[in-house]
Amino acid sequence: MRWMRWTVWGGFWLAVLVPPAPAQQAAEPPPVSEQTEECLGCHESDTPGIVADWRTSRHARTSPAMALARPPLERRLSATDVPVERRGVAVGCFECHGLNPERHQDNFEHFGFRINTVVSPNDCRTCHPTEAGQYLASKKAFAVDNLEQNPLYHTLVETITATRTVRDGRPVPAPTGDNTRNKTCFACHGTRVEAKGLKTVVVDGDELRVPNLTNWPNQGVGRINPDGTQGSCAACHSRHGFSIEMARKPYTCAQCHLAPDVPAWEVYRESKHGNLFSTHQAGWNFDAVPWRVGTDFRAPTCAACHMALLAAPDGEPIVQRNHDFGGRLWVRIFGLITSHPQPKYGGTFTIRNAEGLPLPTTLDGKPALEHLIDAAEQARRQGEMKKVCLACHGTSWADGHFAQMARLNADTDKMVLAATDLVKRAWELKLADPANPFDEAIERKWVTQWLFYANSVRYSGAMGGPDYAAFKYGWWDLTRNLEEMADSIELKAKARR
Amino acid sequence: MRWMRWTVWGGFWLAVLVPPAPAQQAAEPPPVSEQTEECLGCHESDTPGIVADWRTSRHARTSPAMALARPPLERRLSATDVPVERRGVAVGCFECHGLNPERHQDNFEHFGFRINTVVSPNDCRTCHPTEAGQYLASKKAFAVDNLEQNPLYHTLVETITATRTVRDGRPVPAPTGDNTRNKTCFACHGTRVEAKGLKTVVVDGDELRVPNLTNWPNQGVGRINPDGTQGSCAACHSRHGFSIEMARKPYTCAQCHLAPDVPAWEVYRESKHGNLFSTHQAGWNFDAVPWRVGTDFRAPTCAACHMALLAAPDGEPIVQRNHDFGGRLWVRIFGLITSHPQPKYGGTFTIRNAEGLPLPTTLDGKPALEHLIDAAEQARRQGEMKKVCLACHGTSWADGHFAQMARLNADTDKMVLAATDLVKRAWELKLADPANPFDEAIERKWVTQWLFYANSVRYSGAMGGPDYAAFKYGWWDLTRNLEEMADSIELKAKARR
Amino acid sequence: MRWMRWTVWGGFWLAVLVPPAPAQQAAEPPPVSEQTEECLGCHESDTPGIVADWRTSRHARTSPAMALARPPLERRLSATDVPVERRGVAVGCFECHGLNPERHQDNFEHFGFRINTVVSPNDCRTCHPTEAGQYLASKKAFAVDNLEQNPLYHTLVETITATRTVRDGRPVPAPTGDNTRNKTCFACHGTRVEAKGLKTVVVDGDELRVPNLTNWPNQGVGRINPDGTQGSCAACHSRHGFSIEMARKPYTCAQCHLAPDVPAWEVYRESKHGNLFSTHQAGWNFDAVPWRVGTDFRAPTCAACHMALLAAPDGEPIVQRNHDFGGRLWVRIFGLITSHPQPKYGGTFTIRNAEGLPLPTTLDGKPALEHLIDAAEQARRQGEMKKVCLACHGTSWADGHFAQMARLNADTDKMVLAATDLVKRAWELKLADPANPFDEAIERKWVTQWLFYANSVRYSGAMGGPDYAAFKYGWWDLTRNLEEMADSIELKAKARR
Repeated sequence: MRWMRWTVWGGFWLAVLVPPAPAQQAAEPPPVSEQTEECLGCHESDTPGIVADWRTSRHARTSPAMALARPPLERRLSATDVPVERRGVAVGCFECHGLNPERHQDNFEHFGFRINTVVSPNDCRTCHPTEAGQYLASKKAFAVDNLEQNPLYHTLVETITATRTVRDGRPVPAPTGDNTRNKTCFACHGTRVEAKGLKTVVVDGDELRVPNLTNWPNQGVGRINPDGTQGSCAACHSRHGFSIEMARKPYTCAQCHLAPDVPAWEVYRESKHGNLFSTHQAGWNFDAVPWRVGTDFRAPTCAACHMALLAAPDGEPIVQRNHDFGGRLWVRIFGLITSHPQPKYGGTFTIRNAEGLPLPTTLDGKPALEHLIDAAEQARRQGEMKKVCLACHGTSWADGHFAQMARLNADTDKMVLAATDLVKRAWELKLADPANPFDEAIERKWVTQWLFYANSVRYSGAMGGPDYAAFKYGWWDLTRNLEEMADSIELKAKARR
Repeated sequence: MRWMRWTVWGGFWLAVLVPPAPAQQAAEPPPVSEQTEECLGCHESDTPGIVADWRTSRHARTSPAMALARPPLERRLSATDVPVERRGVAVGCFECHGLNPERHQDNFEHFGFRINTVVSPNDCRTCHPTEAGQYLASKKAFAVDNLEQNPLYHTLVETITATRTVRDGRPVPAPTGDNTRNKTCFACHGTRVEAKGLKTVVVDGDELRVPNLTNWPNQGVGRINPDGTQGSCAACHSRHGFSIEMARKPYTCAQCHLAPDVPAWEVYRESKHGNLFSTHQAGWNFDAVPWRVGTDFRAPTCAACHMALLAAPDGEPIVQRNHDFGGRLWVRIFGLITSHPQPKYGGTFTIRNAEGLPLPTTLDGKPALEHLIDAAEQARRQGEMKKVCLACHGTSWADGHFAQMARLNADTDKMVLAATDLVKRAWELKLADPANPFDEAIERKWVTQWLFYANSVRYSGAMGGPDYAAFKYGWWDLTRNLEEMADSIELKAKARR
Repeated sequence: MRWMRWTVWGGFWLAVLVPPAPAQQAAEPPPVSEQTEECLGCHESDTPGIVADWRTSRHARTSPAMALARPPLERRLSATDVPVERRGVAVGCFECHGLNPERHQDNFEHFGFRINTVVSPNDCRTCHPTEAGQYLASKKAFAVDNLEQNPLYHTLVETITATRTVRDGRPVPAPTGDNTRNKTCFACHGTRVEAKGLKTVVVDGDELRVPNLTNWPNQGVGRINPDGTQGSCAACHSRHGFSIEMARKPYTCAQCHLAPDVPAWEVYRESKHGNLFSTHQAGWNFDAVPWRVGTDFRAPTCAACHMALLAAPDGEPIVQRNHDFGGRLWVRIFGLITSHPQPKYGGTFTIRNAEGLPLPTTLDGKPALEHLIDAAEQARRQGEMKKVCLACHGTSWADGHFAQMARLNADTDKMVLAATDLVKRAWELKLADPANPFDEAIERKWVTQWLFYANSVRYSGAMGGPDYAAFKYGWWDLTRNLEEMADSIELKAKARR
């Protein structure tokens, strides 16, 4: 049996020690296009930071042709071909900022070149069509319309972000500009960036004409771009290093998926998985494609469970890459207002529930089934996620985890319904006005119940991090909040008499 | 004097540069047992992640015999001998999961082997008897009973975790299952895992019979295991790497010791020590045994102060390893309800105070002295902790720190008593019902005072991180909360008239 | 053009690969002074941790003479000469603790040497006069007086930190000692450390006479030292490694600049810059002087924007080092009580607004202009900061960012004024007593508006991290808090009738 032992160990060390693609490190960098060389000529000294950043990137070290020559599983581009003039050169300034000039409102003449300020998912699609396609159908790409075109969410945004003046002892909303909206909700969701002609900026004492962009800068996930597309790849693949390492580390998702409303990052950080990541990440390989469980990394990050192409140490694929980040999700634990099956499509603003409200569930928790994925699709997606779990856990563990999670979702939904019963009572007693269901103190407590506390518990149920189910925006607060709502109604009702 | 300078420097560089045990890195890995090889034969492809994780572990690279051959101070096992059939092989799957089959309810037949799903502290005791013994006598091992068997804490748990329905405008507790308890309090404290016969799971299309475990998965510190023991070593030494590095980094303790109730992690992170750790950890050696102050690490983590075997750079021991994590603690700053001397034993659920309540202090702060360590033992433990301080700080600094901490504890205790006076007033005025002292809004404010704010201040006093003594759950909140309690009582009293 | 491409790349790789100063790593360590050798003789075993820490420091590896021999831009000391007896030796124990004995109240005889326990900025000035001078004029150096000598802030401190007893159902402040003040506000701001003669401590069974220091230990930024100076360099350059790496990583600033009142760290961590730092820091050079954008680091930390000497990859300086951390700031987003231009000088306790209050703005937001920098100085400072932005961003981006930030500041100021209108109403209706404007519940809500929520939004506007502008102490809370203030006034007014 001794040979067997060495075989087993041999396979392991082979996987650990042999670099997945020796050529990768050693290859001579591709030539830089003449256009990009001219860009670099000035920007090397004008904006040295981003030029140096780009030089560390794979874009600077690989041409599309070199990338296409790699084995399919190791490819980081999904195009089967790219335009000939871009095929053999590094992916430099002009290769991205010079794409599709005719579609770009923000195209302008810049020292003899036609340049777009904003690079859009449609531009990235040149080399990454599968990723762009998945992304553009996802909820992320519709992040602006899903707030703006949904009358309820629109009201919530306006209620939160309008400045107030005090009249007769009550705060009254004042008309407010785009700015606060852009720096709050739409900082993550994305702003509407349009090019309103050109404007003059002064650079090193010289005047320069550049596009006059509205609501700029912004890198929200659903940004409306000057070429009419939706989304920003730079939200996760930060300019100009575009590193896969960054997208795979949880700090990127943590820019937006944060407590109190979406505590994914904090819950992950407090979980066993997060602990393993924090402790051991320095020894992991965040750059390998495919990403091999156990050899490249030893505990999942956000990207591992939700989107990355994963493989076993021997290279056998486990799950495929998916830039629709809900693609492995069956239930939506971000309650609106209770948990519910994932929506069928990214543009959720068209959903109407049985009460006619633009929500995936009624106020008493009945799901708007025709807009939500069915049981078969739910099972398929859970099956995808389970493949990730089973790379490290037994079936009994994974099944137990999913069952615990489902029961916890159901329990939190009950706690949301109790809060809804109380806010309805306040409305019935005329202690609050349902015309705007989000502005008064008792209504805020109701929103807090489903948007903060129930979500916290559910994220904790999904990923670990038990304090977010307990004392930190969890059951402690779910129960406390109901008592305070009931007290507040009682006191107000008595004060009125 | 020049020779002296070189001697001093020489000793330093010798300590830094000479690896503590050259053999450690170079040694040929021990053979894998035949049983474990069979496990690996399937699990290499079935659960590749944990197999790869185990292969990085010391368990895979060392046999007990190799470990026993090391100098005593460098040993990571405390057994003086181990069973002959396990002595010469790597500590693999079967070596742990095959232990003590007769004690394990969860023992089952698995492809010709008798396997336990759950490895317990009693199993780990085979090689680590001292550690298991210390742990099993500590508060951690009793973490389940200390909640469940203490009538007051039991009420607190039930009050927080029961779902609610609304009746006549008030939230009413509904009967609730184990699930929410398991995902909140008992996620950290541990669940009761019993094997209820076998069940069938489907793995890759094949049916498999495995133990039907209750309340599974769980890795809480006081988990009741199917062999009747209490505790889970995997709570800190995560499967299947079992790395000492992980247990020594604060992220592990941070899974449970978190704000708002036990803000040890956040306070540490904001402290000077935490800053030094965050800044410099990449250059430290978290694997060395003993752990040498100044050369292996330059600022303490949780493990350094509370449990690790520490030595000076020359190898001279400073403090001994202790898996009773309270072993260097004299005062318990986690107030129940005020700060008090540490309890004498791990099973605190038997404590009764002078009022007959299962608390280490009365509601007005009188300690239940016969259950708590006496002044001599307090002095001994503080002496142990002071040895750690003195590795880097002068005596005047350390004494000053301890004195500041003691005064801060006393001040926070006064603030707890003030809150207790107010909640008693609410009870006397019949504005709240003391039958359950944890369910009403005014009672929650009282709990918040001692469980969140006073604890935050005391942890900050012990470890630095001053914002947790000030604006972040600290004195700002201690004083604000009293005003709000008093206002709330006044308004309710007036509304009743 | 091929030569051009290689030239461009060549410059980049030259910058990345050629160490800035080869001598730096290779140089033989300087001799240790005879005095310091005697210190080390005992402290090597008495406090081994700090000795080992010091041995890793640049102070141990460089003498002032060696440092003075370096090119000016690479120097870490600003003195043009240092006293002859310290010039040629390592900067060891005695070189710092033996300075200026005549000025130090805490100077004492210690085994034949005259030693100061506390090393002050005036001592560090020996080698670092420019840094000490900038620091000593900054707000940080006046951090104690700026709290203690400002009657309003003094009241705020006393109100937060005094213990309470309950009398007739109301919390009443009790006289309190220095301790809680020292462990809360003054832990960061600094304590008043005076030497009250000598005291006896017991070290290893031997009695030792050491200075009897008040309010010790402390390392607050404005500590009053026993030599009469203000400040503590060790607040950021932690003893005894004194690493520039530490001061450049955000964890150092994070010890004090934290949510809820100064959420600089949390906002940064959630920002794109913070994400880049967290993701890529392991590959950055935090030790290089000057600090080269794009090659040494690829996203700013606190130090990069606010104080470090930055250069382009080719070594061309971008901005100069400044130890007045407000030196590149034009607007003060820490509202007192609204945002306002930066004060002209570090000792802000002398400021009086048009109402005679010791605040830089009136309660309705009118700035105390004669104490604040004028428009020209604001423009100059914004220009300095913009140089940092332009290292990576275009002019249009930077201008857009500054404009968004200014509008957000204005919007938050309106929200502060609305809260002030409400608290004034409570005072007018005699529902609260303005004699102490910080102690009652409604007043606390008012403070929360400007000290927590408005600050959070403004820090988010300045640095990214959008959740701190939205749901996490942001606009959600700015609007909610006004509703709760108005409700509370209404209920109290009705209850009184």
